[in-house]
Amino acid sequence: MGMKILITNDDGVSSEGLRILAQKMGALGEVYVVAPDRERSAAAHSLTLHRPLRVEEVSPKVYAVDGTPVDCINLAVFGILKARPQLVVSGINKGPNLGEDVVYSGTVSAAFEATFLGIPAFAISLASRSNFKYGVAANFALKMARYIMQVGLPEGTFLNINVPNLEEDEIRSYKITRQGKRVFGESVVEEVDPRGKKYYWIGGDEQRFQEIEGTDFYAVANHYISITPLRVDLTNHSAVKELEGWKL
Amino acid sequence: MGMKILITNDDGVSSEGLRILAQKMGALGEVYVVAPDRERSAAAHSLTLHRPLRVEEVSPKVYAVDGTPVDCINLAVFGILKARPQLVVSGINKGPNLGEDVVYSGTVSAAFEATFLGIPAFAISLASRSNFKYGVAANFALKMARYIMQVGLPEGTFLNINVPNLEEDEIRSYKITRQGKRVFGESVVEEVDPRGKKYYWIGGDEQRFQEIEGTDFYAVANHYISITPLRVDLTNHSAVKELEGWKL
Repeated sequence: MGMKILITNDDGVSSEGLRILAQKMGALGEVYVVAPDRERSAAAHSLTLHRPLRVEEVSPKVYAVDGTPVDCINLAVFGILKARPQLVVSGINKGPNLGEDVVYSGTVSAAFEATFLGIPAFAISLASRSNFKYGVAANFALKMARYIMQVGLPEGTFLNINVPNLEEDEIRSYKITRQGKRVFGESVVEEVDPRGKKYYWIGGDEQRFQEIEGTDFYAVANHYISITPLRVDLTNHSAVKELEGWKL
Repeated sequence: MGMKILITNDDGVSSEGLRILAQKMGALGEVYVVAPDRERSAAAHSLTLHRPLRVEEVSPKVYAVDGTPVDCINLAVFGILKARPQLVVSGINKGPNLGEDVVYSGTVSAAFEATFLGIPAFAISLASRSNFKYGVAANFALKMARYIMQVGLPEGTFLNINVPNLEEDEIRSYKITRQGKRVFGESVVEEVDPRGKKYYWIGGDEQRFQEIEGTDFYAVANHYISITPLRVDLTNHSAVKELEGWKL
């Protein structure tokens, strides 16, 4: 029971997916929850540097932070836990984090940040927009956590897991996948406010992805749990070679 | 002159680095500036979805947006320009964007977002904390823009450029580099406010990097301009193979 597990998310500390995940992880060790005090979806990897952050212990070992998921990881590791957890699990996110959306997601960014700090991590999301059933995802998270504690993760790499919103017996299995590709369309709405002044609203909730076998999207659409290993090194290493031939 | 170039940053629309960059790019085509109305450093890839966005044309073809750099790219392409620019240049950032810091940076994320939309892009930063001399970086940006218009960029890839804050004759040349690695230390300060209540402040402005040859940090420290090709696909493709051997 000496093992410390840190749980966070971007839906906020009071979200159901987080609560169910934390409860389930209790089977593995001592669980700490350090999560945003409200929804911080699409917070991406943003870090609060321009103001202080407040932390409230809302119940034993459950902390609400008035910042982003990436703030939570830093505050947990360097402030609240005063120790490195052995594992970080971010989720269970209320909604998918597939394809390019991984870079907008606060939930995924929290696992990314933990990886920077050398802590094994994964993000887990429920691929649905309504009628959320967290049970299968919670069970899978525990299984994955146990497995990672045994075999570890590749260097500088964390997992982005998406679970179809289905009953256990409707899910076919899991697939190791690649980051999929969205179909980028017109995603900004232009409107006029009651005072006649123009405003814009970023939309794009359409969630159309290219049908490419082997991708996260394709797996989930076909009732598989998708597991995508993501790197924190963004370098395109093969392009380094190519660019060395440039004559600027 | 038919070519449209979109300029943005995360230091805000009134920053000197942006102004100098926009002016310089005028040599290449029609320049549009769409940038945050204030500093949005460490905004990372965050996207404003929960509220409308306002745009103000502060001078001809210069637009201030009350959002993040990634918001600016979307509003520019789908709202303001109503056309795809041929190139996006983000910067000149007041400060370095080296190593892991690329994922916190709004300036880098803007180029990342443009790449999602299929538009060639680069981010350019001045690697200094004070006494900013933008001339060399602006000249290099123009040179790079011309080169990219000729040869293109590798698929799904943009450039992260960091320029030492030196005079032209003090800069040795440029290097094609990899993303460097920070030394992660204790980066959260715990303090007590005038009312006796604890608060935390994320610091970590130390900027210590591991001395690894071939990295962005190493190049800049040795008076080279660093050019790192970054991918928008975060998948660790070699790990996909490895994980396929897992028995979950």
